[in-house]
Amino acid sequence: MTSLDDLPLRDDLRGRTPYGAPQKSVPVALNVNENTHPIPEDVAIDIVGRIARAIPGVNRYPDREFTGLRNALADYLGHGITSDQIWAANGSNEVLQHVLQAFGGPGRALLGFAPTYSMYPLLAAGTGTGWIAADRDADFEITPSTAAAAIREHDPDIVFLCSPNNPTGTPLSLDTISAAYDAASGVVVVDEAYAEFAPAGTPSALTLLEGRPRLLVSRTMSKAFAFAGVRLGYLAADPAVTDALRLVRLPYHLSALTQAAAEGALAHSAEMLAMVDEIRIQRDRIVAELTTLGYEAYRSSANFVLFGGVDDPGAVFEELLGQGILIRDVGIPHTLRVTAGTEAETSAFLAAIAVLAPVARPASRIDA
Amino acid sequence: MTSLDDLPLRDDLRGRTPYGAPQKSVPVALNVNENTHPIPEDVAIDIVGRIARAIPGVNRYPDREFTGLRNALADYLGHGITSDQIWAANGSNEVLQHVLQAFGGPGRALLGFAPTYSMYPLLAAGTGTGWIAADRDADFEITPSTAAAAIREHDPDIVFLCSPNNPTGTPLSLDTISAAYDAASGVVVVDEAYAEFAPAGTPSALTLLEGRPRLLVSRTMSKAFAFAGVRLGYLAADPAVTDALRLVRLPYHLSALTQAAAEGALAHSAEMLAMVDEIRIQRDRIVAELTTLGYEAYRSSANFVLFGGVDDPGAVFEELLGQGILIRDVGIPHTLRVTAGTEAETSAFLAAIAVLAPVARPASRIDA
Repeated sequence: MTSLDDLPLRDDLRGRTPYGAPQKSVPVALNVNENTHPIPEDVAIDIVGRIARAIPGVNRYPDREFTGLRNALADYLGHGITSDQIWAANGSNEVLQHVLQAFGGPGRALLGFAPTYSMYPLLAAGTGTGWIAADRDADFEITPSTAAAAIREHDPDIVFLCSPNNPTGTPLSLDTISAAYDAASGVVVVDEAYAEFAPAGTPSALTLLEGRPRLLVSRTMSKAFAFAGVRLGYLAADPAVTDALRLVRLPYHLSALTQAAAEGALAHSAEMLAMVDEIRIQRDRIVAELTTLGYEAYRSSANFVLFGGVDDPGAVFEELLGQGILIRDVGIPHTLRVTAGTEAETSAFLAAIAVLAPVARPASRIDA
Repeated sequence: MTSLDDLPLRDDLRGRTPYGAPQKSVPVALNVNENTHPIPEDVAIDIVGRIARAIPGVNRYPDREFTGLRNALADYLGHGITSDQIWAANGSNEVLQHVLQAFGGPGRALLGFAPTYSMYPLLAAGTGTGWIAADRDADFEITPSTAAAAIREHDPDIVFLCSPNNPTGTPLSLDTISAAYDAASGVVVVDEAYAEFAPAGTPSALTLLEGRPRLLVSRTMSKAFAFAGVRLGYLAADPAVTDALRLVRLPYHLSALTQAAAEGALAHSAEMLAMVDEIRIQRDRIVAELTTLGYEAYRSSANFVLFGGVDDPGAVFEELLGQGILIRDVGIPHTLRVTAGTEAETSAFLAAIAVLAPVARPASRIDA
């Protein structure tokens, strides 16, 4: 039997294992920051109708320029953004891969502030781009001066700023983003995959695009739009940036089905986003109740919460899994991450974690 | 206004323009080797039903292992191929990109026999892989000794053998493929995107997989299955190869909609492939009639025909386009390429090209 080692694999891939959270079927899956609310039935019906109308044409290649979808995404984002500023791909991972293919590659480097989205170093490796993990301030925050200092020190070709940050939930201020931009000579991507879950009134980095041609703001329909299964990520930037990304995308990369489905969801964006409010409530409830239980819940503007004060994350993970509740150990010592689910899912998680709570922890800490 | 030159683009991308055939709306589009027959209505209804059942789950990520689809593809291919030998992605371009990411990259080289599929050098460039264009024999054929000699000379890390070859239509014999494999130290991909259009009884390179762990056979649903708009390419190889490709794919790269649609089409493969016979008849008709008209039509096992004897391909292209008939100038001097369409589309093309035919060309050639 042939093994991987018998094949002429690229040297830097030897010994690696594929990325991926476990795919377990459990009653309460709160591990990959999905939106646990299914899309509304009337929206589902509209989407199926659009797909039914697209199917007779699928013998032909799809619109390579995904014109209708770019228009719909521009309308959704607002802020005066036009369709020539929009790029999209099969998930924001592919959007970010396009950015790395266009602006990174061998001899170039990507800088991120760790801990951050675990795909960033993998996307860098996959495109031959170097990866620089800069440090954050206390509680995973990044001040403008911290951002600017790291970028000036390393002068990377690309900076990825995840805001709110996965896996910590930490949002970045516009001051930090503009300080990072001013310090950078390369492109700066603000990954706003979870932006819709931020407190009402929180300004998006989209408001900074004007006059900043090296600034890219990426989004996804996977989270707020409950569309993880459809795979649609996108970004807004100067039209010259989208021209650059056209040089590296595979032709016809977005299927006719993806385009039809995403346009359908965007036609109902108000209804699709109604559940975001409910998720915010559950997120805030998780932070409040975990704090009461003696855990250290970090502030989160996303649909998940990272919490510390866990003596043995592996044991807690397994205990919850035994009860049919799947959360995530993201590898930060003494922490776990949980997605804000429906009210019932959140209640199930909180009931289970309460039993394992670090009772009287503050007192024992004072003793130590 | 910012231009591409103002951005910190990778040096090797400077001055490039995006790949792509013109997207023109014409009555008779025979330019990109699509299957011009829409899929049968009962199959379309089944596909829409499957998608309707998938939509309520799209708030969750899709099955990263596309288990059902791999089973369906293995069943379709036959030859004792099992699902652990199957890989798939968004079009065969992405499948080939995965192969280059796993086995190519900086310092490594891909060899193909030119003229061949124009995406090969672009995929090589996009992954930092070197591109070696080896020569073909007369009439775009490749004998076993020609294949083996070029591969021994260059010792590439990857060989792409396109059979039938795009844009020439030329099939490769199994002798040529096995000679290429024996001469190669790296992986050998037989790109069988158009295999279903080969004359009945033509053996596939799938029959060579057993005992050849470095052999990969790629296919697509874009052509025979009339599914270009859905974007589904795939390959069969040793299970160790699919393990290697898991290291470079983006997680969840195949959407739930893509998986559902492709499974639906594969459940009706006999019906989906019924139109292949009709397309073969039109392809053979094009070869016969063009030859009668004095053109040099090359032998084709694909759903298109390359024909020479065209004094001014640009002028003929434009003349046909003016009549609403879009074909392709693939850049081989004095040739054009036409896709075999429906009987009516094929008749429209043949009527138009007859008027422009090189009358008495054989005689004038003798004079020259």
